[in-house]
Amino acid sequence: MNAVTPGPVHPSRDATTTLRPVAYARIDSGFWAERRRTNAEVSVPQGPRLLEEAGNLANLRAAAGHTGARDRFAGDFQFQDSDVYKWLEAACWQLADTPDPALAAEVERIVELIAAAQRTNGYLQTYYQLGGGEPWTELGWGHELYCAGHLMQAAVAHHRATGGRRLLDVACRFADHIESVFGPGKQVDAVCGHPEIETALIELYRTTDEKRYLELARYFLDRRGHGTLAAGADRGHDRDPGPEYWQDHTPIREAEEVAGHAVRQLYLLAGAADLAAESADPVLRAALERLWQDMASRKAYLTGGLGSRHDWESFGDAHELPADRAYTETCAAIASVQFSWRMALLTGEARYSDLIERTLFNGFLGGVGLDGLTWLYVNPLHRRAGTHERPGDQAARRTPWFRCACCPPNAMRLLASLPHYIASADAGGLQLHQYAGGTYGGDDFTVHVATDYPWHGVVDVTVEAAPASERTLSLRLPIWCTGHGLSVNGTPENTVERDGWLRVTRHFRSGDTIRLDLTMAPRLTRPGPRVDAVRGCVAVERGPLVYCLEQTDQPDGLDPDTIALDPAVPLTEQEQPDLLGGLTTVTGSGRLLPPEAPGWWPYLPHGSVPPRPDRPIALTALPYYAWDHRDPGAMRVWIPTVTTEQ
Amino acid sequence: MNAVTPGPVHPSRDATTTLRPVAYARIDSGFWAERRRTNAEVSVPQGPRLLEEAGNLANLRAAAGHTGARDRFAGDFQFQDSDVYKWLEAACWQLADTPDPALAAEVERIVELIAAAQRTNGYLQTYYQLGGGEPWTELGWGHELYCAGHLMQAAVAHHRATGGRRLLDVACRFADHIESVFGPGKQVDAVCGHPEIETALIELYRTTDEKRYLELARYFLDRRGHGTLAAGADRGHDRDPGPEYWQDHTPIREAEEVAGHAVRQLYLLAGAADLAAESADPVLRAALERLWQDMASRKAYLTGGLGSRHDWESFGDAHELPADRAYTETCAAIASVQFSWRMALLTGEARYSDLIERTLFNGFLGGVGLDGLTWLYVNPLHRRAGTHERPGDQAARRTPWFRCACCPPNAMRLLASLPHYIASADAGGLQLHQYAGGTYGGDDFTVHVATDYPWHGVVDVTVEAAPASERTLSLRLPIWCTGHGLSVNGTPENTVERDGWLRVTRHFRSGDTIRLDLTMAPRLTRPGPRVDAVRGCVAVERGPLVYCLEQTDQPDGLDPDTIALDPAVPLTEQEQPDLLGGLTTVTGSGRLLPPEAPGWWPYLPHGSVPPRPDRPIALTALPYYAWDHRDPGAMRVWIPTVTTEQ
Repeated sequence: MNAVTPGPVHPSRDATTTLRPVAYARIDSGFWAERRRTNAEVSVPQGPRLLEEAGNLANLRAAAGHTGARDRFAGDFQFQDSDVYKWLEAACWQLADTPDPALAAEVERIVELIAAAQRTNGYLQTYYQLGGGEPWTELGWGHELYCAGHLMQAAVAHHRATGGRRLLDVACRFADHIESVFGPGKQVDAVCGHPEIETALIELYRTTDEKRYLELARYFLDRRGHGTLAAGADRGHDRDPGPEYWQDHTPIREAEEVAGHAVRQLYLLAGAADLAAESADPVLRAALERLWQDMASRKAYLTGGLGSRHDWESFGDAHELPADRAYTETCAAIASVQFSWRMALLTGEARYSDLIERTLFNGFLGGVGLDGLTWLYVNPLHRRAGTHERPGDQAARRTPWFRCACCPPNAMRLLASLPHYIASADAGGLQLHQYAGGTYGGDDFTVHVATDYPWHGVVDVTVEAAPASERTLSLRLPIWCTGHGLSVNGTPENTVERDGWLRVTRHFRSGDTIRLDLTMAPRLTRPGPRVDAVRGCVAVERGPLVYCLEQTDQPDGLDPDTIALDPAVPLTEQEQPDLLGGLTTVTGSGRLLPPEAPGWWPYLPHGSVPPRPDRPIALTALPYYAWDHRDPGAMRVWIPTVTTEQ
Repeated sequence: MNAVTPGPVHPSRDATTTLRPVAYARIDSGFWAERRRTNAEVSVPQGPRLLEEAGNLANLRAAAGHTGARDRFAGDFQFQDSDVYKWLEAACWQLADTPDPALAAEVERIVELIAAAQRTNGYLQTYYQLGGGEPWTELGWGHELYCAGHLMQAAVAHHRATGGRRLLDVACRFADHIESVFGPGKQVDAVCGHPEIETALIELYRTTDEKRYLELARYFLDRRGHGTLAAGADRGHDRDPGPEYWQDHTPIREAEEVAGHAVRQLYLLAGAADLAAESADPVLRAALERLWQDMASRKAYLTGGLGSRHDWESFGDAHELPADRAYTETCAAIASVQFSWRMALLTGEARYSDLIERTLFNGFLGGVGLDGLTWLYVNPLHRRAGTHERPGDQAARRTPWFRCACCPPNAMRLLASLPHYIASADAGGLQLHQYAGGTYGGDDFTVHVATDYPWHGVVDVTVEAAPASERTLSLRLPIWCTGHGLSVNGTPENTVERDGWLRVTRHFRSGDTIRLDLTMAPRLTRPGPRVDAVRGCVAVERGPLVYCLEQTDQPDGLDPDTIALDPAVPLTEQEQPDLLGGLTTVTGSGRLLPPEAPGWWPYLPHGSVPPRPDRPIALTALPYYAWDHRDPGAMRVWIPTVTTEQ
């Protein structure tokens, strides 16, 4: 057992966070253990092959001057290197979890390749090293600081997982080079079009104790929002995405809304939350809380997915949440987890982990194929039969790899580091943020969790190591939950939920058992009154899972786009051990929508809806994360009700 | 009076159309006369200045080798020349309507410039002549045949309006060059990424009687749909719009759906309708009827606007009609009129002109600023207060000119040629498709129309020239109309509408009066049951006009996004002679939407909607075409009803 389980976010000793990551975290059973096993046994091992096929590793060999390496950059994007770094980070978290000599050898091979590709001055980006132009001249599209950030995160993971300094030294040399180039009065006084360096530099600081990296992150964060990137967009005269795209439209402390490219916005907010953790900055903290509130209450999909527009991969307006054209990139779900987790640590509030749970089970996991071999880039909440999709990454079809392959290795690193997000600690005790079978805690207070969550609502917590004095075990009561029971050593407790937490305070002893029993009945959920896109509709949910109607599950393959649900008929549930790895379906009752207008014009006088057929139809709903594994037919999360006025 | 009023569509003597354009058409009073006066007096005259400022004319001077001309291509797009051609076409239709020596001189100056810019082999596109590369090597993005098509249309207009052959000869030389290059076994066997050449070549054939042009158009139309452009996309590796974008995804006779880039699809369909008119091709005609039906019944907005997606300016799926992110390019509305008019002539059916009317008054006219100086590129049916828009052409803000300036000169040419679309003739008589004050007809049967349409429903038709024998005057009964009266010389007639037409058959005499009285009461309209984006909403309409709620008109500037309408309260109307050039507003009653959820998560249990405030609110609706002329606040066409279930 490691003294401290490596994880991606480790606030410094000086940090002002309310909570801290636990010293030990290991998922050993249940839902997430299964998903993580596929990640470890299928997804992560195939990484080097895919990175070889896509040319990413060849780019590094070429930059390293290997004999026989081709000298032309391979791949369509300046940020190809980042795929390698994200995979490397995933592999390192995986090694921290479970030793694997073959994987460790692959990691070291690629670390050496990266080290060899680095220029003597510390610079490293194969696109510009292989003829793409002068470094630091295309701040908008170049992604140099973005790639540097992913390199730093990989280096931190490598160091925390293996203790080795080889990649960490590469990252520090690059960071030192960046520090020599960027800043007021230096060669470049500007920011990168794609945030990422900010959070990475702060974690590099946390790992190396080198305060210059914290200050450099602060410079980049403070430098943003003055529209300088937008004014000087460096490439492609017919592509002006505007300042929100670059996250250069407003200083972060003044921002009132999340806006622009969703992943860029969220990586930036993760970095800002790190800065808030490492400095007493109430204005920044207030801005982060305000922006998170805007994101969660006005711009989040039911799945936790973020980013409403295909157009420049951006957030939409408040309440602009189309189900069909939802962009909801898998990377945005991952970035949302990163941002929310930092906010959970910073504030100690349960709502951040409520959103993390929803995002993990739905908006994120929907992007990860059950086979570990295929991925979704976009995660809409509605697909029409025969939908018109532009071919490529943004087609909502499970795909082995993408031309822009940001999502797959990003998903791998989140799954590999998932234990990090389950529990936290403070001086007063332990907090369980998520319910996953495993062991969590520190030297003097460690618990084991056993649960069949999210299929069943019972969570059994057993104290393994008990502290010498009174402590508090805090259990997050999910916001979706309409009823629960709590018992300690078999005795019911009337613990009152406060701020989303059920807190059990006592002098625990080893072997104590705490049982949380969450009501898991399927339920119908409505959207907010201002969401035009799904007005008059309901969604089926059960526990933390969002459900959907897939065409293949309906009677006679009925198109879900022709169906309304009858909310008066109770929902029932069915355990399906043989369906898509085992899951629980939910059945409701519906009727056909009114027929379309005869003739050629579909817009008719108000009140002229013809009567709908009265025959009830049994509708079967599937967890959203499992969609698109069988037929390419229609899918809906939001279902009109039979009572909706037309 | 010209013997034949020039217009853009003149089927050949051999054409198989059911109807023919009238020999004489002149709008002299009323709604459209006002809009056309602004076009003639403001919009068209400023064209040369704007084309000079944008560099389009400088490009022609440079290609012509004028001394002192700059040698670098100006403008962001390969198709800059087409703006000049479309303006020229507009100016020629304007000259045909009203002689204007200053405008005529501008036209001839630019015609000479174009002639001078043409290469000796007939080729003409300044982008490629000024260093853009080899001609005919970038069929996807190059727009060479597209520009050639607009040149041909301008040349046809110039010839029909002035009788001159100068530009027609340029166009024929270019067409001959194209014919020498394109075809099976020739230098290039492919199509252009942007259809337009097809309809242009057929009109060139109709003007010159040169059958080779008809055959070349047939070649291009038949050559489409084999995915060759998509496979060989010629530029920009990170931009693959897919075969639907290029209109190269399926042969037109086999297509079941309109798809891809809306303007490209519709220009192609206009050309195909021309081909169907000039050849007995029942398979092609059936395909056109099928595609029009798909477009009108499943993919058209209430305004007649077309194209649901910003992403590659494309049609969406059937029933995918978001009001907020509607793209509905002004050019798509224009192209829809062009396609539908050709179908009206081909088939004689009234529905095509029903859609033209709706499009002209709403989806098209909304794109034309009341001042004649500003334009909209996109025409959404919903704008939120403080909406996030990418800066540039696609922001829904009235703009003097666009970087991609396709829409303004396109709108100018439609307004200048509008008389062409009002009436038609056949051996049996005259058909009035639209109601606009003016004179329409031929040598032996001419009528004068006087009307205050669309503000009032009375249309007075007076026979000016009467034929010697019995004829039929057909009046389109608009599909939106719920009641009407018809009288001849003051005597009511019980004419039964058939297929959208009211047909009056008699031996007309000069001075006969026919009065059509259309009920103009404001009404509420519902969408089809499968349109998710506006489910549970209604729209206010009156006559052919779609209405909208603009924030500035509501009590205390109330955001229309917070309002529901009470359909039980009757609508009333108010004449507003001093508002935005004079118009009629409609007033209804509403209430506030239920409040948003407290806390951070907006999705709540079904049935948990809090009661809405009960205070009624007077809501004022404005014709959609007049929106965005005052405040930049919120706007909605579709309004939730107070009875919508949440």
